[in-house]
Amino acid sequence: MAERLHVDASNLALFTDLYELSMLQAYQASGMSGTATFSLYFRKLPPVRRFMLACGQQHAAHLAASLRFERSALDQLATLPGFRDDFLRWLEDFRFSGDIVAMPEGTPVFANEPLLEVTAPIAEAQLLESLLMNLVHLETVLASKAVRVVLAAGRRPVMDFGMRRMHGTDAALHGVRAFQVAGLDGSSNVLAALMFNVPAQGTMAHSFIQAHGDETQAFREYAALYPGTTLLVDTWDTIDAVEKIIALHREMGDEFNIGAIRIDSGDFAALAREARMRLDAAGLKQVKIVASGGLDEYQIARLVEEGAPIDAFGVGTAMGTSADAPYLDLVYKLTLYDGEPRIKDSPGKPVLPGAKQVYRYRDDEGHILRDEITLRDEMREAKPLLVPIVRQGEALAAATLDPRLAALYARGEIERLPASVRSLEEGDAGFSVQVSEALKRLHAEALARAH
Amino acid sequence: MAERLHVDASNLALFTDLYELSMLQAYQASGMSGTATFSLYFRKLPPVRRFMLACGQQHAAHLAASLRFERSALDQLATLPGFRDDFLRWLEDFRFSGDIVAMPEGTPVFANEPLLEVTAPIAEAQLLESLLMNLVHLETVLASKAVRVVLAAGRRPVMDFGMRRMHGTDAALHGVRAFQVAGLDGSSNVLAALMFNVPAQGTMAHSFIQAHGDETQAFREYAALYPGTTLLVDTWDTIDAVEKIIALHREMGDEFNIGAIRIDSGDFAALAREARMRLDAAGLKQVKIVASGGLDEYQIARLVEEGAPIDAFGVGTAMGTSADAPYLDLVYKLTLYDGEPRIKDSPGKPVLPGAKQVYRYRDDEGHILRDEITLRDEMREAKPLLVPIVRQGEALAAATLDPRLAALYARGEIERLPASVRSLEEGDAGFSVQVSEALKRLHAEALARAH
Repeated sequence: MAERLHVDASNLALFTDLYELSMLQAYQASGMSGTATFSLYFRKLPPVRRFMLACGQQHAAHLAASLRFERSALDQLATLPGFRDDFLRWLEDFRFSGDIVAMPEGTPVFANEPLLEVTAPIAEAQLLESLLMNLVHLETVLASKAVRVVLAAGRRPVMDFGMRRMHGTDAALHGVRAFQVAGLDGSSNVLAALMFNVPAQGTMAHSFIQAHGDETQAFREYAALYPGTTLLVDTWDTIDAVEKIIALHREMGDEFNIGAIRIDSGDFAALAREARMRLDAAGLKQVKIVASGGLDEYQIARLVEEGAPIDAFGVGTAMGTSADAPYLDLVYKLTLYDGEPRIKDSPGKPVLPGAKQVYRYRDDEGHILRDEITLRDEMREAKPLLVPIVRQGEALAAATLDPRLAALYARGEIERLPASVRSLEEGDAGFSVQVSEALKRLHAEALARAH
Repeated sequence: MAERLHVDASNLALFTDLYELSMLQAYQASGMSGTATFSLYFRKLPPVRRFMLACGQQHAAHLAASLRFERSALDQLATLPGFRDDFLRWLEDFRFSGDIVAMPEGTPVFANEPLLEVTAPIAEAQLLESLLMNLVHLETVLASKAVRVVLAAGRRPVMDFGMRRMHGTDAALHGVRAFQVAGLDGSSNVLAALMFNVPAQGTMAHSFIQAHGDETQAFREYAALYPGTTLLVDTWDTIDAVEKIIALHREMGDEFNIGAIRIDSGDFAALAREARMRLDAAGLKQVKIVASGGLDEYQIARLVEEGAPIDAFGVGTAMGTSADAPYLDLVYKLTLYDGEPRIKDSPGKPVLPGAKQVYRYRDDEGHILRDEITLRDEMREAKPLLVPIVRQGEALAAATLDPRLAALYARGEIERLPASVRSLEEGDAGFSVQVSEALKRLHAEALARAH
């Protein structure tokens, strides 16, 4: 009765748009089973992003390739109008038997570059659409916001405090995976921290101080229970609270052992400077200062630039909802069917036909110069970004990149991007993504035969 | 290995911020167990909202009150530093034993009005914070956006097509529940439609037409398989496609049975008018026109105002991510401890102390005039909005409002709001939310003793 309704392995195949299943039944009914290639990409960057950090696509593809219709799911489906018994039986045997290529998670990606391509009998490739999009969209949107926060913070640690206002439980869980790829240091979300093996972080809320009434007493108790803890100082008056901490240190010496103070409101730069000065003068140089409360990458960049003595940042809502760009124009488009290029011809929404590859060109020191989108079988003297992760329905070892390795890879790639691409400013970075001559010819050919 | 990681009953208690558990251990260690009241409310409306539609709070409170720490969850928690054996044993027996009052789902709500208040021993009330906020935030944000779309559409049906770009699986599931409360007619999300008993809707994607290459053949096949279906007409040229449908009707008569066409791009008003004219002239007056593709409440309001002959709308990303206001400034604040008002005193962030009630005043015809926030025990000649839903840890019958009933209630309440509150324009509606004299006095008293 009070059960929380959720998606798990038993019903994942039903987590799809109705039209995918309706089209599947039509393909099954007419015996249409040619091989299709679908391309997952976005058509344009949000105005406030200069690149996206591809995330979730390996994980999602791996998962999608293992999709099954359980008996219980088919029983539920049978209650909807329009599905025939022979189709439901056919779904019972549904297996993904195709191939998937994807960029490694943590790859900086630009408009029109496929993050992933699926090649399979059309019904199989079609069914993955809604699921792949939902999973990849979430993690890519969140990783792309988080990496900006990490860039703004420089070498200072960033912690995720966002779970309370992220969109539901799944966003708050898989967001932590995306944040990890983006280079965050930990999360306040206990379950996510345990699932993805990232440090669980956080200390005390204002309510703890309020309930005690006496701030000094609350600090004393918490420090005794959690040596090295972080004390929240802005419940009433931040500098007053810092003085109470200094007084406790004078009274108790090393018995009073705290690691940091946290400022959650007010003029962060001014408060941090005043607090630092007083802590240092009292011999508490080792006590760090953490800032949190409504922060985003712009405020963090400003604080860092001003030289505010803040050692770490806790970031919540702005990052957890990617508030300035909460969605990406991600699409999953048919580009090849039965050996022929197939595209939808919409003005201003070009679709690149065929099965494709993306090459990233670098200078001798590894700095990224430009990208080129080519046909899959064109060869270039550069490392191809799309690599096989599922072959004939079987996940390859490459499909299970550890998020920690993805984070290292992402960091290295981002450092090698032109500085204009790493900038937090709104506007076009001018990064060049070319389309190969062969792909352009195929595009013209596909347009000509589109009607 | 390819398992999708998710939140279910076995790990729900770990879906919390670390500091909640750290504070709980501190309360348990010091034996601090006074009764606390926490208030769940938002401090201000987003600039592009004139009211929020409270959603999820009854469902969430019901769920939170049944929270348990399973053995497996405690084993996981034991791997984190800082938790002591006697605390983990204490968690094993954790039961919520307190009271919860909440507004019924579907209530229009304004800044500073509690959506919900929890009264319980402080550890119990504290633990619910992160979970309640995540669940209520999601559904309230999405219902509040969706109700604007419904208002814009007038009496025309609105369908949810948003799952692919909503934030993860949980948002896409519980979003459909919120959309139902807001008055939507159905969803493309199969699993959500089955779970919440709403109509599953949707027809075909462009890929179906593209794979066939021959649009007429694709239409013929789909209509044969799904009599009364909706055909997607904008894959190449919308009016060309309409002409193909008319030709099929001439050729096959009633054998070719479709219910609607769907236009997914282009100039909706112009295309709908041209399509309507041609369909009518061909004797296909009964074929309806559905519009979808990047729509939000502003575009829908414009189309309706222009008199575009569109019979129903499919709405996706803008609604599913509440793109113009993806988060709400929702907070969960301690307001009473051990019989004393307790508040955090932040400039510009007033907290109303104590256990409270909200009264909504109406004229003789039921039109809503204004609200008043009072102390819980103040009596007024108006219906109180906060009603008990959990008493001594037991969910009451009132805790399980059916979303369909909530939708009827919401619709009635919204119709009775001043027109200025229902407006889609940006800006303050000037709706009056007063604070009672007794509550003001308690606030002054709480401020005086805050330090």
